Amino acid sequence: MAIRIGIYGYGNLGKGIESAIRHNPDTELVAVFTRRDPKTVQIQTEGVSVYSAADAPKMKDQIDVMILCGGSATDLPVQTPELAKYFNVVDSFDTHARIPEHFANVDQAAKENGNVGIISVGWDPGMFSLNRLYANAILPGGHDYTFWGKGVSQGHSDAIRRIEGVKDARQYTIPVESALEAVRSGSNPELSTREKHTRECFVVAEEGADLAAIEKEIVTMPNYFSDYDTTVHFISEEELQRDHAGIPHGGFVIRTGSTGWNDENKHVIEYRLKLDSNPEFTSSVLVAYARAAYRLNKEGQAGCKTVFDIAPAYLSAEDGAELRKHML
Amino acid sequence: MAIRIGIYGYGNLGKGIESAIRHNPDTELVAVFTRRDPKTVQIQTEGVSVYSAADAPKMKDQIDVMILCGGSATDLPVQTPELAKYFNVVDSFDTHARIPEHFANVDQAAKENGNVGIISVGWDPGMFSLNRLYANAILPGGHDYTFWGKGVSQGHSDAIRRIEGVKDARQYTIPVESALEAVRSGSNPELSTREKHTRECFVVAEEGADLAAIEKEIVTMPNYFSDYDTTVHFISEEELQRDHAGIPHGGFVIRTGSTGWNDENKHVIEYRLKLDSNPEFTSSVLVAYARAAYRLNKEGQAGCKTVFDIAPAYLSAEDGAELRKHML
Repeated sequence: MAIRIGIYGYGNLGKGIESAIRHNPDTELVAVFTRRDPKTVQIQTEGVSVYSAADAPKMKDQIDVMILCGGSATDLPVQTPELAKYFNVVDSFDTHARIPEHFANVDQAAKENGNVGIISVGWDPGMFSLNRLYANAILPGGHDYTFWGKGVSQGHSDAIRRIEGVKDARQYTIPVESALEAVRSGSNPELSTREKHTRECFVVAEEGADLAAIEKEIVTMPNYFSDYDTTVHFISEEELQRDHAGIPHGGFVIRTGSTGWNDENKHVIEYRLKLDSNPEFTSSVLVAYARAAYRLNKEGQAGCKTVFDIAPAYLSAEDGAELRKHML
Repeated sequence: MAIRIGIYGYGNLGKGIESAIRHNPDTELVAVFTRRDPKTVQIQTEGVSVYSAADAPKMKDQIDVMILCGGSATDLPVQTPELAKYFNVVDSFDTHARIPEHFANVDQAAKENGNVGIISVGWDPGMFSLNRLYANAILPGGHDYTFWGKGVSQGHSDAIRRIEGVKDARQYTIPVESALEAVRSGSNPELSTREKHTRECFVVAEEGADLAAIEKEIVTMPNYFSDYDTTVHFISEEELQRDHAGIPHGGFVIRTGSTGWNDENKHVIEYRLKLDSNPEFTSSVLVAYARAAYRLNKEGQAGCKTVFDIAPAYLSAEDGAELRKHML
């Protein structure tokens, strides 16, 4: 019998989960929950219904794992602990500074109700975190570097859209190739913010807007752009739609370190993601961890976990003997 | 109190373990075991003794984890199950085809005696296997590629040394850059053996040897070289010592796959190692898994495990709350 999955929130991430379920035959979509009027939400999977978010607890016995697809700012801090009372849950909570607090809240709700909650699943936090942990354990005393991109930053795109005279915008974060090469060389460079990433902006201006003023406001914007070398391109709405509709992202996690009695040998561990769709890749990771949540709970476990706490074999649809035979 | 580690076998790998222990303050070297005359084996760590391999069982209560540093062909299949009767054990068994059998033998001995055994630890099998598993779970239906090098292949170097007229030799396996780029592009190329790697040989010939005959014997050698584009350089013994004394290695594990309702978005997951010292890096992984073996056993677990079965947090000297705070 397939693992019965519910999707809570049907934005980009929820749609990605729906596609990911289609790619994983041992999982099955049972229901989608929305805070909108369910009648207005059209999903792709035939024969599956959309319900009001408020009705989720009633479906406690029909769903093995609920995947939460809300935002980290205000949705998940409330929703994940609340739904962990009824379901095994998985979320992609990504406010790094608030993870300890979120962990404690989900842990309590999940433990009290015999469920498993896995938080902060995706690629950063998620796969990037895992790679930092493995690399740190192997090369103690080394140096960590994370680069993001090339990819769309939603926050930076939004910041540009708030400028007067801007109709729409898309911002790409781009790692600096020479900085990557310096890190890979094992020279342990100290890199400033400006040296690690550049920012490239594609802006659709309102008719008659002052382009020079918009460009100046972007490149001098504190926190968002002033510490970076930023390029601004003004393009038409058609060009934005045609060339910048995707949500690509990715990045690099690199650790360098040394071994040997006198640290005479250098090593570089590098993990790289190149993603056409940030939300769909995140969704694919979430579904793999939903499989883990289901199995761990079947084994009698309860409480909150992160990617650090879950043995890799739980993510695979194959059993241990199969994995050892052809993947080890 | 530090985790008390024994080293069983003091070749390149055993020496690497000794250095790795020095880099991990929560571990401590307690004893080195050798099949040679212990008096002839000089180690680096002050105050630690070398014992005869036969005396290992007597030190059952002084050692938390025994790390086995023998070869996979004949040593480990016998030694790991035998020592799992007395100790938690970790080995780097790398004969892929015989892993299921080795697993079963170690599992039985470890379970009967309440110990944990972790086999096939290192980078391939080991970190490469982990990355294959994670990437497969995230991108079902994708394509896997593994490239090795640039690095020294001991087996190929030995094969050259057996040729008449050859005094010494060193062989490098080199991934073909254009093949790597084709894979990263997401085009899912079908690559032949010749298209993936080249082989470069540095050969010291005996005085008066027939160089053309040696070169021909190398490049046409079945299994080892005939399926590859191989380059042969004749150099002096001094040059070999000066320029080719290291044991570098590494490689790439890449998985490409697609997401989206109609598989419209492509993704590339790439893990890369660039290692100055193959045995020292392998040793560093072994020591991290020795920490895991110790902890799992403290929790009451017993039996054989692989890297697939071990939650990443067990590898780190830090506790879960610390890890969540700064590494997630």
